[in-house]
Amino acid sequence: MNASTKSRRYVRPLDIAHGQVDLSHGSGGRAMAQLIGELFLPEFDNPFLREGNDGARLPAVPGRMVMASDAHVVSPLFFPGGDIGCLAVHGTVNDLAVMGAQPHWLSASFILEEGLPLAQLQQIARSMGRAAREAGVAIVTGDTKVVERGKGDGVFIATTGVGFLPEGVEITGDRARPGDRILVSGPLGDHGMAIMAQRESLGFASEIQSDTAALHGLVATLLQSGVDIRVLRDPTRGGLATTLNEIAGQSGVGMMLQESAIPVRPAVAGACEFLGLDPLYVANEGKLVAIVAPEDADRALAVLRAHPLGCEAAIIGLVQADPHQFVQMTTRLGGRRIVDWLSGEQLPRIC
Amino acid sequence: MNASTKSRRYVRPLDIAHGQVDLSHGSGGRAMAQLIGELFLPEFDNPFLREGNDGARLPAVPGRMVMASDAHVVSPLFFPGGDIGCLAVHGTVNDLAVMGAQPHWLSASFILEEGLPLAQLQQIARSMGRAAREAGVAIVTGDTKVVERGKGDGVFIATTGVGFLPEGVEITGDRARPGDRILVSGPLGDHGMAIMAQRESLGFASEIQSDTAALHGLVATLLQSGVDIRVLRDPTRGGLATTLNEIAGQSGVGMMLQESAIPVRPAVAGACEFLGLDPLYVANEGKLVAIVAPEDADRALAVLRAHPLGCEAAIIGLVQADPHQFVQMTTRLGGRRIVDWLSGEQLPRIC
Repeated sequence: MNASTKSRRYVRPLDIAHGQVDLSHGSGGRAMAQLIGELFLPEFDNPFLREGNDGARLPAVPGRMVMASDAHVVSPLFFPGGDIGCLAVHGTVNDLAVMGAQPHWLSASFILEEGLPLAQLQQIARSMGRAAREAGVAIVTGDTKVVERGKGDGVFIATTGVGFLPEGVEITGDRARPGDRILVSGPLGDHGMAIMAQRESLGFASEIQSDTAALHGLVATLLQSGVDIRVLRDPTRGGLATTLNEIAGQSGVGMMLQESAIPVRPAVAGACEFLGLDPLYVANEGKLVAIVAPEDADRALAVLRAHPLGCEAAIIGLVQADPHQFVQMTTRLGGRRIVDWLSGEQLPRIC
Repeated sequence: MNASTKSRRYVRPLDIAHGQVDLSHGSGGRAMAQLIGELFLPEFDNPFLREGNDGARLPAVPGRMVMASDAHVVSPLFFPGGDIGCLAVHGTVNDLAVMGAQPHWLSASFILEEGLPLAQLQQIARSMGRAAREAGVAIVTGDTKVVERGKGDGVFIATTGVGFLPEGVEITGDRARPGDRILVSGPLGDHGMAIMAQRESLGFASEIQSDTAALHGLVATLLQSGVDIRVLRDPTRGGLATTLNEIAGQSGVGMMLQESAIPVRPAVAGACEFLGLDPLYVANEGKLVAIVAPEDADRALAVLRAHPLGCEAAIIGLVQADPHQFVQMTTRLGGRRIVDWLSGEQLPRIC
């Protein structure tokens, strides 16, 4: 993201209120420099970006480096509780957070569709900038491309995050052991159903808000508490079910959930039922799955509940030995069922 | 990019020869795990990716860190001399290289359009993997999203690179000084005209090949030679003209080019003339602009020419004091003209 202010001689200011993205904004020329200088820089402003080079030179940070990337294609761009801008920040911050890393820097690449109103793009950039400041990360570099009308869909945002692991932190997907307890930081399915309610114009579900949030503060609190954390994960696409199946595969274990212990808001449960969806497969964007040593489960629950993002946390099941690596669930009626991987696509373009 | 091999129980192998991308490949569920495990992992294979976590944990490397990002939307996906896969690697490697950094790690986020043939995606992934190995970088993390038919265009790839600056290397866009010499590492316009010749079906220009290449080896040679390098840049979108205007703005200087000294292949010059384009504004993907201290210009030229990627290098002009920061050119006819920023869009979706 290369745009010195000196380069903008003889150019009228961008008409953000009435203007649209056109192909020249992806040209590498003056129009692109102007878009970056007048629309993105004011929202993301930081010394690294202001240097205006092809990349950002960053100071050394102690600890092992972690790098994570996400492409964001959520539709619609704006939804109850958030928009693609803050989601793009939270998604990548959370990928770092669940590895135990403290997020530091983000890059952001925009693929814009010709015709996107500049006012919408500004609103998205503003939301990104705010989310980044709140999360304590800086958007230090990026890129902007424009595709012709009908070859994109408003805006796609790819973010990459770099963070650093505090000394001694070792949180990977292969460390779950039989007996470990499984916790979630709050009710499931809010993000996915906020999007679906808007897409399907479900009036009765209009109260559902996306839970999009940065989780690294919650993770830091858990780390500082000294709880023996085995695995952390944010159950995004594919929901809790897919996340737990991934962990079961990586760790070579099975799991047993208690359906009655899994928190789901009534509005989300109702909307899921109406649309024939299972909240266990619906995406979350601000929830944490934590697998902890059995003796630390109650303390972990208390720590999560003491944090604003974890006040509705619950212990939902346990890890067990299982050569088949099945995730199972004891249902409300006392039966058992297998909670399999998501097959097919339940909710396209949810993040 | 999270896909343990254990997760793929009970699934038939992907039919790469006949299959297509569908929305389930972006779901976060089993189909996505399979796409990653069977199509991407074999091409990118490295221990960081194989860990299968939400991000990659990376070892410490000495030196100041540099981070750079690019979104790639080139159309067509395959062109003479390359494809979007190797281009996505080279583009980001080069952004790091021109800051003087040694590239180490890449992330890759894919936005796929429903209906993309899996065989094409494999060919692209294979080209990315090969380009990464040749450049000595590892693709350590990533993401895959799928959008509905007509909401994307085959595949877009956003790459982020992380590299490290050797001790004492300080190459930024604001260090050009009056008297410095301007060099290019070879003929201009090859990449852009290879794309345009294919798009416009210009038979007579079918010999033009993209110059897409990783430049960090060439940069390392120049750094090791001890030449006093002021600025390096790769003249991609907007071409040489836009790159030099950017540097002029950042450094607060003017420039004077010699048209007769600027190398352009006859086929490129011919195709440009036919299409009414100016090669100074056409994108390059494997060329270096180097601004060096006057006393080191001849040595820099010799060093560039001794490298396979710089054998047609040339000294094309000099930096001069100019409060207006104009880039000017002495034409073949002895006149002078201003070489301004690219205005508007000459060649959309060139990279």
